[in-house]
Amino acid sequence: MAPLGFIFIGGSVNSAVDTVRPLVWTSSGLEVLDQRRLPFEVVYNTYQNVHQVAEAIATMQVRGAPAIGIAAAYGVVLAGHDRFAKDSLSWREGLETDMGVLAASRPTAVNLFWALDRMRSVIAGLSDPAQNPQQVLEQEAIAIHAADIEGNFMMGRLGARYLQNASGLLTHCNTGSLATGGYGTALGVIRSAVSEGGKAVYATETRPWSQGARLTIWELNQDRIPATLIADSAAAFLMQSGRIQWVIVGADRIAANGDTANKIGTYALSVAARYHGVKMMVVAPMSTIDWKTVSGQEIHIEERDGGELLSESFRGNGSVIDAWNPVFDVTPAGLIDVIVTEKGVVENPGIESMKSLLN
Amino acid sequence: MAPLGFIFIGGSVNSAVDTVRPLVWTSSGLEVLDQRRLPFEVVYNTYQNVHQVAEAIATMQVRGAPAIGIAAAYGVVLAGHDRFAKDSLSWREGLETDMGVLAASRPTAVNLFWALDRMRSVIAGLSDPAQNPQQVLEQEAIAIHAADIEGNFMMGRLGARYLQNASGLLTHCNTGSLATGGYGTALGVIRSAVSEGGKAVYATETRPWSQGARLTIWELNQDRIPATLIADSAAAFLMQSGRIQWVIVGADRIAANGDTANKIGTYALSVAARYHGVKMMVVAPMSTIDWKTVSGQEIHIEERDGGELLSESFRGNGSVIDAWNPVFDVTPAGLIDVIVTEKGVVENPGIESMKSLLN
Repeated sequence: MAPLGFIFIGGSVNSAVDTVRPLVWTSSGLEVLDQRRLPFEVVYNTYQNVHQVAEAIATMQVRGAPAIGIAAAYGVVLAGHDRFAKDSLSWREGLETDMGVLAASRPTAVNLFWALDRMRSVIAGLSDPAQNPQQVLEQEAIAIHAADIEGNFMMGRLGARYLQNASGLLTHCNTGSLATGGYGTALGVIRSAVSEGGKAVYATETRPWSQGARLTIWELNQDRIPATLIADSAAAFLMQSGRIQWVIVGADRIAANGDTANKIGTYALSVAARYHGVKMMVVAPMSTIDWKTVSGQEIHIEERDGGELLSESFRGNGSVIDAWNPVFDVTPAGLIDVIVTEKGVVENPGIESMKSLLN
Repeated sequence: MAPLGFIFIGGSVNSAVDTVRPLVWTSSGLEVLDQRRLPFEVVYNTYQNVHQVAEAIATMQVRGAPAIGIAAAYGVVLAGHDRFAKDSLSWREGLETDMGVLAASRPTAVNLFWALDRMRSVIAGLSDPAQNPQQVLEQEAIAIHAADIEGNFMMGRLGARYLQNASGLLTHCNTGSLATGGYGTALGVIRSAVSEGGKAVYATETRPWSQGARLTIWELNQDRIPATLIADSAAAFLMQSGRIQWVIVGADRIAANGDTANKIGTYALSVAARYHGVKMMVVAPMSTIDWKTVSGQEIHIEERDGGELLSESFRGNGSVIDAWNPVFDVTPAGLIDVIVTEKGVVENPGIESMKSLLN
């Protein structure tokens, strides 16, 4: 990668409550904070070609739907540079192959495809077939990255308006700076609300991958935001105690009617929240909404290997024990009180109310 | 301990689906299956004095309310032997001190106090002040142990009657042979139901101590009962899928009105079960019912150290992160469909219907 002469870390990191960035674009390539090693080690790996970036996504060094999309966009920049350097005439075909590699790295992440489509549009818009695409690709990737963070700031403001009278907030999984360009979606709303004071923040452990216990509380600790970790199964008991008024989560995919696929356990929280009169907020960028998916019933749920739950002694060797390890579940729109996007808010989401976001 | 000439392993272990015993009384003392080392190692530690037994309870080598009560009873036998050998006249005082040590080993286990009270009654019933108490204490401990297992067989039969049309059963924590004298309470009902065929068994991981992932599936695997492990937070999604019709759990303490304190997460399951039309069954021996406790609001909930949830890097050193780690929660009777005891069954438990157990 040719030196680019500047570093893009994604938005201004000038607030004491917003210091973490998972992706840093530099003259040496894409620096990726290796989230598998958190909270024990803070290590940025520098990647200089598209295959390394795809590998970083596949192995969950970077995770979270928005962050995956941004990483993929930078992957296209690196691929464009290499393909053009190799063959300044037929680089487009090779680049399309590389985008296929990126698309296969995490097949259920809707933001990933959205980001690749944006990069494709840039290429399609080049007037001179022999033009070096590097500069426009890089501009687009940085624009995606910057817009994600700006969108998160906006969602933070929009979402926090609902929380002025709340004293306790619960979040699930990691939807913070680590899952996005920076600041976060659901955790961004919590950052914004906390900055106004008087909020207790609770985070679930989020088994089996423990995004809450490893990532969310790590970044909250980095940003000096006090928080309390709970077991996933303690959330309903916490609600019974009256200590929280809102559950605030992100989304992996939102259907046109507002049904929301998100980390396993979100549905359980939504059922418990409704039972206790606790409100449920989903926070996600517009790129998470899949308008072609009519309802949650059409969303295929990825299942991961049971080894994340089962100890080695129960695998093989005549064991009669199995594991069921769905990564996501689907929360019906009827159990969601508010969906917050960077383009506006939908209360009581449904097929009709969701359309307001398109205007 | 003088040789006793026989071994009591607790009930007949003649069924292929009931092979595990956590406590074995032998001529060498009390053999305790060290549950901290499961599922990786099967190790029985032999204890020959009351302090070792109290330590085994305190360090959770043996756990589960009924099993703790049985272990304590055998602890009194060992104590009685030693105290009488030391001083055949004033051994009663020393034995009362030893029972205090046992009582302090796990202060919230109601069965522990119940078992100690039964042993005290035996001592009070001795006509000759200088009589060696060993034989009657040993008989009483074995009677407690045997009655626990017989009671579990009875609960298995009573509970399984409700499950004839069910195809999927979910349990939480470990309530099996490992938690009792043998066979189990809630897991005993599942054993009985499974023996009639056509049931899929699901077990939660049960964070943070992972009794489900370490113990329940271990003993089911030992007994060749196929089962599927899930993350705690996947239970509501499992219910949404229609695959289970009953949640079957044990109890640490049941109030006079049927409110039930049990492992953290039980309440969340009861809320999700009610929402999905899934039935909720609590299975526990009569000794678990605390008639002096009017309702669940009077039950003090033990909280354990946050270190079970928080990794070392968040403890001390200016961390702003804390953990809330309640061991139990309280499920109101209104969310319970059936309470099964060895003396009978209560449907739709409440202050009046519970009284039927006293007749």
